[in-house]
Amino acid sequence: MIHDFVYDIPVKVYFGRDQLKNLGPELKKYGKRVLMTYGGGSIKRIGLYDKVVKEIRDAGLELWELPGIEPNPRVSSVREGARMCKEHDIDVLLAVGGGSTVDATKWIAASACVDHDPWDFFDYDIWAPVKKALPVLDVLTLSATGSEMDSGGVISNPETKDKHGRMHPLLLPKVSFLDPSNTFSVSAYQTACGSADMLSHIIEVYFNMDQDLYMLDCFMEGLMKTIIKYTPLAIREPDNYEARANLMWASSWAINGFIDGGKDLAWSCHPIEHELSAIYDITHGLGLAILTPRWLDYCLDETTVSKYVQFGVNVLNINPEQPPMVIARQAIDKFSSVLFDSFGLSRTFPEVGIDATHFETMARKAVNGGVLNGFKPLRQADVVKIFEACM
Amino acid sequence: MIHDFVYDIPVKVYFGRDQLKNLGPELKKYGKRVLMTYGGGSIKRIGLYDKVVKEIRDAGLELWELPGIEPNPRVSSVREGARMCKEHDIDVLLAVGGGSTVDATKWIAASACVDHDPWDFFDYDIWAPVKKALPVLDVLTLSATGSEMDSGGVISNPETKDKHGRMHPLLLPKVSFLDPSNTFSVSAYQTACGSADMLSHIIEVYFNMDQDLYMLDCFMEGLMKTIIKYTPLAIREPDNYEARANLMWASSWAINGFIDGGKDLAWSCHPIEHELSAIYDITHGLGLAILTPRWLDYCLDETTVSKYVQFGVNVLNINPEQPPMVIARQAIDKFSSVLFDSFGLSRTFPEVGIDATHFETMARKAVNGGVLNGFKPLRQADVVKIFEACM
Repeated sequence: MIHDFVYDIPVKVYFGRDQLKNLGPELKKYGKRVLMTYGGGSIKRIGLYDKVVKEIRDAGLELWELPGIEPNPRVSSVREGARMCKEHDIDVLLAVGGGSTVDATKWIAASACVDHDPWDFFDYDIWAPVKKALPVLDVLTLSATGSEMDSGGVISNPETKDKHGRMHPLLLPKVSFLDPSNTFSVSAYQTACGSADMLSHIIEVYFNMDQDLYMLDCFMEGLMKTIIKYTPLAIREPDNYEARANLMWASSWAINGFIDGGKDLAWSCHPIEHELSAIYDITHGLGLAILTPRWLDYCLDETTVSKYVQFGVNVLNINPEQPPMVIARQAIDKFSSVLFDSFGLSRTFPEVGIDATHFETMARKAVNGGVLNGFKPLRQADVVKIFEACM
Repeated sequence: MIHDFVYDIPVKVYFGRDQLKNLGPELKKYGKRVLMTYGGGSIKRIGLYDKVVKEIRDAGLELWELPGIEPNPRVSSVREGARMCKEHDIDVLLAVGGGSTVDATKWIAASACVDHDPWDFFDYDIWAPVKKALPVLDVLTLSATGSEMDSGGVISNPETKDKHGRMHPLLLPKVSFLDPSNTFSVSAYQTACGSADMLSHIIEVYFNMDQDLYMLDCFMEGLMKTIIKYTPLAIREPDNYEARANLMWASSWAINGFIDGGKDLAWSCHPIEHELSAIYDITHGLGLAILTPRWLDYCLDETTVSKYVQFGVNVLNINPEQPPMVIARQAIDKFSSVLFDSFGLSRTFPEVGIDATHFETMARKAVNGGVLNGFKPLRQADVVKIFEACM
């Protein structure tokens, strides 16, 4: 059925090569004391750090820095950022990096406005409310998580081996700077992982028997075709602007909420993967790539086959003149080939150093002790079977 | 090439059947003195008027009304609205109706903030700046112009026989209420005209040799497929919610700026059609439907054929295993059949009472005495030939 929904994405995006001149004026709208966050230093290698700092200085703003945000960002970084915001009376946050940096910065923005520990926002027993957050702007360097245009962030707690995502409208970036040339230096591996993440964001919504607006299905199919077409090109030619631009804009639209319409079924592969990377610290997109075809295979039956047919014919160009189950199997095979051959990602758990030790624990956490009500309801035993299929 | 662009569409949309309860709280954010604008009274026939007034009263707001906004809204209505805003110290405008009502209301919002005549915003010799506007909200009753999510409005001046559109970010609606069931009573004819208008909004951007993001082409193709699929269904079954919902959300996305990327070529059929309806007062979408296939035919040559092939294969399901020119001709024929057979619109100028009397005048005005630099550059003589092909 067609659900009611609210569309509200007030993020302003500067897209393209020659947009950084707008950074100073945009930051200034929100104050003069800026905390800039970034990761391991790749922004210095590509010269982006110097450009950003120059724009901030030229605008007459005061700058503090928090480097070292981890991939799978940790609550300890959020704590440190919140501390700095309070100590230096920061007005506005600027994340320069990929989704991890943007995610951590969103939660720094919220944590700066409260007295409690940042993990209280993620502890299921506490789930502290978000009532206020500092404004966040970002300069994106990786096409993957879509954090630049959504209201969520995922934070890891190594002490409790938890990794939780949470969304709140106050965390939406005010302005995102998307320059595809800032992703030229992204490695083949990270490019592939980013694209697998984007595809998963779409598949989590697309594979849903609660058929919503046809228009949105068309748009999702267009996004998937775009990612499948341009990822191998970006891997072969890292500085192909057309490829990087299509991937970058697709990353935002894969998860900013537009494609959801009013569908509200839970996601499946993302919560399962979060348990994987909470323990093994593997790249999120790689975990998703290994899991997704097995999950698709596990969920295929007579009641769900029509969605696989639509996917196979409209996205993967599979001949429609065949029985539905044949098309569906071909779709899963062809999609596996996209991820493992065309994108070049590892195919199994053993290849990435994961064994069966924690299957039961991870599965129990993924379903939160009950049922994961996504495309098909999954219980702990179902998730274990999906894990086993990844061996 | 891929252009730089700024994406900035902060319009909040409540989509669906059960959203009007949010109207009062949203209006209240902008003040307590409301001017409600509407057209010829169809909102009273469908019971929407009573529902809207009840929400406004229940929210404790004060209400003034300006009924009688015309299709192809006139500058006289804008003058009257601006006068009322000043006299009653209006805080916020609420347009209840189709694109004409929303367009007029946007320019009332701007005109209420200046001392000069509203037509000064449209007179090419004056082109008064927009520096301020009252907030506009709307409850939409027709899927067509996309005014509910864009920053433009088209106003007619019968005295000068001019009809001009102009955009400004301050004119973006703050909140739009899109309830597809409010379009159940739209006649077959108006439904068809609305869909022709939407298709034209997309075609003006899609038919462009300045190839931009593939992702956006995919999205445009999805929008066109959606409109072509659901318009005949909405005509056959006026209260088919799925059809009305797809058309309604497509109308907004056909023109809110997202599909443009950074393309900045001029539109072609819209300015030509504006000259038609400035003189003949025919429905905008009908004028576009008659013009568009002739314009497509006129622009087809070896340098443009590839775009027709893409359109024919991806939108109209034409067999790709044929020479490009054959596919292109089939695409034009099949698209004509969509408009004139499937949508049931009139095919020629004589059928709608237009003869050759004003061809030269309208063509000169359409190219503004020079060249219309759209898909293919058009001079006065070119536009006259397109008119002649409509006979």
